[in-house]
Amino acid sequence: MLPRGLRQLSGLRRGTSSLGIRPPYLPRPSQSRGLAGTLPELTKDRYPHVKRGDYATLDGNHLKFFTGLLGENRVLTDPSECEGYNVDWIKNVRGYSQCVLKPKTTEEVSKILSFCNEHRIAVCPQGGNTGLVGGSVPVFDEVVLSTALMNEIISTDDTSGVLVCQAGCILETLDSHLAPHGLMMPLDLGAKGSCHIGGNVATNAGGLRLLRYGNLQGSVLGLEAVKANGEVLDCLSTLKKDNTGYHLKHLFIGSEGTLGVVTKVAIQCPPKPKSVNLAFLGLNSFDNVLKVVKKAKHELGEILSSCEMMDALTMDLVVSHLKLKCPLIEYPFYMLIETQGSNQNHDEEKIDRFLEVAMEEKLVLDGTATNEVSKMKNIWDIRERITEALNHDGYVFKYDISLPIENFYSLVPAMAERLGSDAKRVCGYGHLGDGNLHLNITVKEFTQDVLKKIEPFVYEFTSKLRGSISAEHGIGFRKPKYMHYSKSPASIQLMKQLKALMDPRNILNPYKVLP
Amino acid sequence: MLPRGLRQLSGLRRGTSSLGIRPPYLPRPSQSRGLAGTLPELTKDRYPHVKRGDYATLDGNHLKFFTGLLGENRVLTDPSECEGYNVDWIKNVRGYSQCVLKPKTTEEVSKILSFCNEHRIAVCPQGGNTGLVGGSVPVFDEVVLSTALMNEIISTDDTSGVLVCQAGCILETLDSHLAPHGLMMPLDLGAKGSCHIGGNVATNAGGLRLLRYGNLQGSVLGLEAVKANGEVLDCLSTLKKDNTGYHLKHLFIGSEGTLGVVTKVAIQCPPKPKSVNLAFLGLNSFDNVLKVVKKAKHELGEILSSCEMMDALTMDLVVSHLKLKCPLIEYPFYMLIETQGSNQNHDEEKIDRFLEVAMEEKLVLDGTATNEVSKMKNIWDIRERITEALNHDGYVFKYDISLPIENFYSLVPAMAERLGSDAKRVCGYGHLGDGNLHLNITVKEFTQDVLKKIEPFVYEFTSKLRGSISAEHGIGFRKPKYMHYSKSPASIQLMKQLKALMDPRNILNPYKVLP
Repeated sequence: MLPRGLRQLSGLRRGTSSLGIRPPYLPRPSQSRGLAGTLPELTKDRYPHVKRGDYATLDGNHLKFFTGLLGENRVLTDPSECEGYNVDWIKNVRGYSQCVLKPKTTEEVSKILSFCNEHRIAVCPQGGNTGLVGGSVPVFDEVVLSTALMNEIISTDDTSGVLVCQAGCILETLDSHLAPHGLMMPLDLGAKGSCHIGGNVATNAGGLRLLRYGNLQGSVLGLEAVKANGEVLDCLSTLKKDNTGYHLKHLFIGSEGTLGVVTKVAIQCPPKPKSVNLAFLGLNSFDNVLKVVKKAKHELGEILSSCEMMDALTMDLVVSHLKLKCPLIEYPFYMLIETQGSNQNHDEEKIDRFLEVAMEEKLVLDGTATNEVSKMKNIWDIRERITEALNHDGYVFKYDISLPIENFYSLVPAMAERLGSDAKRVCGYGHLGDGNLHLNITVKEFTQDVLKKIEPFVYEFTSKLRGSISAEHGIGFRKPKYMHYSKSPASIQLMKQLKALMDPRNILNPYKVLP
Repeated sequence: MLPRGLRQLSGLRRGTSSLGIRPPYLPRPSQSRGLAGTLPELTKDRYPHVKRGDYATLDGNHLKFFTGLLGENRVLTDPSECEGYNVDWIKNVRGYSQCVLKPKTTEEVSKILSFCNEHRIAVCPQGGNTGLVGGSVPVFDEVVLSTALMNEIISTDDTSGVLVCQAGCILETLDSHLAPHGLMMPLDLGAKGSCHIGGNVATNAGGLRLLRYGNLQGSVLGLEAVKANGEVLDCLSTLKKDNTGYHLKHLFIGSEGTLGVVTKVAIQCPPKPKSVNLAFLGLNSFDNVLKVVKKAKHELGEILSSCEMMDALTMDLVVSHLKLKCPLIEYPFYMLIETQGSNQNHDEEKIDRFLEVAMEEKLVLDGTATNEVSKMKNIWDIRERITEALNHDGYVFKYDISLPIENFYSLVPAMAERLGSDAKRVCGYGHLGDGNLHLNITVKEFTQDVLKKIEPFVYEFTSKLRGSISAEHGIGFRKPKYMHYSKSPASIQLMKQLKALMDPRNILNPYKVLP
């Protein structure tokens, strides 16, 4: 007789499917941004120790230059129009910029930066504004340089799989564009409906399938960037191999707009899979979660495309606030395991065998597996809408940590115990396959007292385990003073030297990244 | 009835196999270096336009410091002992260093560089000395800093697949070390028996399986490097995701020892495949080669691990000089297609189906496919010993070019026509799946006249097609003055600024990389 869970597996499995169609995602965060709701305190007031730099204050002559260059429609100065560019979408930080610039071309970006550099006007480059560490909005009155109108797809090469596009293209739009070419974007994240590829590159975004398709440092073949002084740097190689001198593109991948503004990207896109399978599993201990991830890597090998986990309190968030339905009864832990491959029969055989053994060995207590698009979408929705659900739970303290996989979850109970009734909720989920935990703590409202209980404890804990205090979200505005928990003094010193070399007047995204 | 070629496919296919054992490789180049043979002219004489920099000349006090630090056994000064470190293994360039240093630890490297920087002694860092552009040997009398004794494997994590080791570990040794852990190195190249992982990282080596396992920029998780001034930079993260500030490791990946000396590496190692299959195919046109590579990418998908090609004149090299046996009759083009996967039955089904269709469509005229270790080794030997065979053919002009795949082979007939009887042989082979052509021209002996016919023509041709003048070999000593064919003036300027920042006294690997 089959174990209990397998019956359910069989029940849900293998409906009518449209192979090759990937699960749809979260509505664009912009659709649910709801700026009409409560605005966060201004950053300058919440973080009074951060002082405005000695930058020019925007005047009529500056605006005249900008409108002369871009026309009036692409220079926003109306405070209500600027508001959305001043607040991050998790309503954590808020600047008061009075000017948003919307260039369409590299040449316009170059002229803007050249002018700002000359007049020492601080600039905050902004993509889709989906960042989670306050890196994409102004701290004070920096001019916002939005890539929203830089959304041209320049070329798509079916043979080599190389896509070249402007920085402001939305990730999901690019993925949809690639589908008829039999290709897909090598990265995927919950914010795909809003985030810009330029922002992804500038922040070295990771996401849901890094496990399979690698990081942007590997898949970005080339890029074009504009330096602080307006000089255009053409590193837009479309070749897989190009060892001619220093690999300058890496200065811009992950430096969060502080060393230059990425204007174009050439990216290696993998073939769109012909077969996608998704399993959602219930487990009773983190020990078993660990055993299952090891088994998945071993048994599913080259087709394993995602390996995510969430705990019971995280599941409760999406069920309570978004009324999503959990396909299983309550378990302490849930896992989501996806395969992408080129042969449906082969892939099914692999995943069936993997699940059978995992259930026989009682590692997995219950589960559901499917290749039906609508059912896969429902399961992915649970995972991808966690951030949205968190916003309904109260003020959110967000941490994005890399830890050795054995200690992946240890921070969550440690933090819950430390905070006790000070926290409304302490929950953990994330990219288990890459050792990347998202720890979230919700409270009724922000207080310095709770913040002091959380930080620097969370960073000390991570540092002791040789983890990273920011796995994929970056440093942004929120974390510069904690960078030393992950980086040596010599490294930080060299970063400062690079900043001084690339942006000697410090106009690009000031108050961010560097301590 | 089966087409002719398929019978042969069936004949050779599927003997007794030891799954999971990867093909062995080329004997270490050092074993066939044969320095007893003709030595090349000294670089200073062959390239008289390159002038020695204003560096200190080694004196007794310097040597006293070095022997005090390392002991006499690890400071080589005997000219015959130094000779092997002065000549590259293809006997193309030759320095006259009178001192080879063999540190064992990062601290020793740090003290050496600190001393050399203070006394302005030029230093040539050297790994396995298997480079092909003269980057790894001195040009004049630079002190050689050899990583040969820095060969400790520091840790191997079975769960995460992360290997941490010193820079002087030999690639093949690391791969053998990983096998019992169920892991493999993510890169593989002909020189694996000699090359050091530190040199691989410093030159951003590509190799035979980049197609599948990606580049070092993606798979190197962290590294430790010593700056020119002796400062140790600890970027030795072992985490897959770590977005805490600028990604400094990339300054050292591919900068060929000019910005610092890599001393330790942390590298993400993929699971060793449970199933390996290899096909060797004969084709009658490059058009068909192109069709087959597209089909292989499509049909073999996630298990395609290598896609190489060679032309008839290349095959003749290994048959004539090394007496290797070609498994097929003569065709204008040969292809080598390898799969690595986790399920032998699935992989065989995929490759069989792919080959059947390719032969039915007359794209492939004949072929042999096998998973037997000894037969795979014989086939790989043909591909991997080409460089060795070339050395028997005369003086070799080597070019390592990236080209858009449609134009991958066009340079070979163009060059053959241009050189006519001036060349003994003009042949092309390489990493087709990555668009990386190795063009080799042999002549009886080096003459400036032939060189002038080849260069800059070869670079102009490549540049017009927006290719790269060095796909994976790097710039080294041979190509700085041609870098502008692949890089913009603004990029070269920024490279020079980075060099000035990192190595202001220009002691690290001078005369290399930068124009």
